[in-house]
Amino acid sequence: MKCRKCGARAVLNMRQHRLALCRDHFLEWIPEQTRRIIERYRMFTPEERILVAVSGGKDSLGLWDVLQRLGYQADGLYINLGIDGGTGYSTASQRMAAAFADARGLKLYVVDVPAALGAPIPIAARLSNHNAHKPCSVCGLTKRHIMNRLARDLGYAVLATGHNLDDEVAVLFGNTLTWATGYLARQSPVLDAEPGFVRKVKPFCRLYERETAAYAVLQGIEYVYDECPHAEGSTSLYYKEVLNQMETERPGIKLSFYLSFLQARQGGFLDGSPHQAPDLRPCPDCGQPTTSGSTCSFCRTWDRVRERMKTPAEGGNALRPAEQAAPDE
Amino acid sequence: MKCRKCGARAVLNMRQHRLALCRDHFLEWIPEQTRRIIERYRMFTPEERILVAVSGGKDSLGLWDVLQRLGYQADGLYINLGIDGGTGYSTASQRMAAAFADARGLKLYVVDVPAALGAPIPIAARLSNHNAHKPCSVCGLTKRHIMNRLARDLGYAVLATGHNLDDEVAVLFGNTLTWATGYLARQSPVLDAEPGFVRKVKPFCRLYERETAAYAVLQGIEYVYDECPHAEGSTSLYYKEVLNQMETERPGIKLSFYLSFLQARQGGFLDGSPHQAPDLRPCPDCGQPTTSGSTCSFCRTWDRVRERMKTPAEGGNALRPAEQAAPDE
Repeated sequence: MKCRKCGARAVLNMRQHRLALCRDHFLEWIPEQTRRIIERYRMFTPEERILVAVSGGKDSLGLWDVLQRLGYQADGLYINLGIDGGTGYSTASQRMAAAFADARGLKLYVVDVPAALGAPIPIAARLSNHNAHKPCSVCGLTKRHIMNRLARDLGYAVLATGHNLDDEVAVLFGNTLTWATGYLARQSPVLDAEPGFVRKVKPFCRLYERETAAYAVLQGIEYVYDECPHAEGSTSLYYKEVLNQMETERPGIKLSFYLSFLQARQGGFLDGSPHQAPDLRPCPDCGQPTTSGSTCSFCRTWDRVRERMKTPAEGGNALRPAEQAAPDE
Repeated sequence: MKCRKCGARAVLNMRQHRLALCRDHFLEWIPEQTRRIIERYRMFTPEERILVAVSGGKDSLGLWDVLQRLGYQADGLYINLGIDGGTGYSTASQRMAAAFADARGLKLYVVDVPAALGAPIPIAARLSNHNAHKPCSVCGLTKRHIMNRLARDLGYAVLATGHNLDDEVAVLFGNTLTWATGYLARQSPVLDAEPGFVRKVKPFCRLYERETAAYAVLQGIEYVYDECPHAEGSTSLYYKEVLNQMETERPGIKLSFYLSFLQARQGGFLDGSPHQAPDLRPCPDCGQPTTSGSTCSFCRTWDRVRERMKTPAEGGNALRPAEQAAPDE
């Protein structure tokens, strides 16, 4: 197969676009597509400061790379969750994120969850009542809290995550199978800022995972190949398998599923949702907005964890990032 | 596995309900479930006359059987579409429908499409411009027209079809993957009567296909096993495969997908749909309501077919059913 732009040997064929490209044109195409997505959904402008949540994986590092190349002001935030999983997952991924930032002279903030909050995520999950089997619920809660809080505290206009099309479609698929109307009404490439919440954007939301992976590889970005060890057997991975199988038989079905959803939303289809804007008030402990009416879920969870560990740590209110931290080896 | 009600050997295990039943209790359970669905969605009352669209398959004959047992006033309508497919599909299915009605002394109306409209469906599809490959579009248009028209002309309050849960979920899945908002807004166990349209109901909409099939077999109903020969390779059959695979891994997922959709609709989630009630006017040729502004799609299609066949037939306006017709062997 030949590159549509120059006739050289193509490295990737985007069947959904009927577009095959050589290495060089593919490496141009991804930033160009990303720029279009950013502009189309009015994610941010070159004047705004962006905090990129980096995990050390292909998507977030690829996104950070692309934003730099496009001339946006993007710094990074790495959250060490204290997950080992037999492969030193968090250590390895922090090393990747730090090496990426070092090599390019970029600013990376690091939050070490075990040090800042008193326990690594897997132990926190076991000690809290969230879920005996999977730490994913506590992990998500903790990451969302830290990301929003630091973005605000550090004065960023917007928080960018590396979610790709496959991620978005798996979530959409799950929310559609259960018609989780509240989640459907909120799933969007851009979540506008609300009092206490920074704007959240997903500039890779229209790029297939195989494209973001190819971009990282061809761009020479070193990243952690492993999935989080706790993701195995998750429902979202199962949905990804089903969707991959459908994509093989019906190329483009993921993209059209996602785009038709966005179009239906824009057409007002989801506006009948009776979900009112939740009544948000600042948590008396950490100051982040919460619907709970008192202490937020993050503070309650971690208070419980620390109480059960009987090892008082700094506490949720003392959360501070280390800037440009070297990887802890 | 044992019957939950009597401890005898179970013949079917409804994993989504955690319910295993013996033959006798299963044969009680299906009518009881159907009665509940009819009442829950206010489909019809014992005082209303119902026309059941029967194809000769397990679902429609099973439904007719159940409605009789429940004491409803249900007559049948069989439409011979003139589909052979190498197996004499239409002839065989008409024979099944007629034998079912004869054995029970039920009233069956028969419409013979080739005689009444001038051509069998496969030829009509080829001669019209609808779809060169598949006759399904012309077939659906023709069946919908005939069913509604005869139900009205013969004074029935409601038209019942044998769509089961698997059918409904495959349609819902397809409409969700494309976010076909107009179709989503209209998919319902009950479509209320509108000027020119009778009420349409699907009393088997919450029963799995394996349950309706088991009911027909255990009740001793003889039915056509074959799918329509033109269904092979259709998108809806492909969706059924994907959904069956998901059901195997996540028992109950089809039912919960469908029920959560109905709940979201009831909660007003789909009310934001900008789809206005279409402006319906009677077709000047046949009198059926149409949005076209002039001759309806049914009349235009069949006029074109007859013109190209150069064999003037009775025409759309002369459509008359034969009552209790014997199968043409």
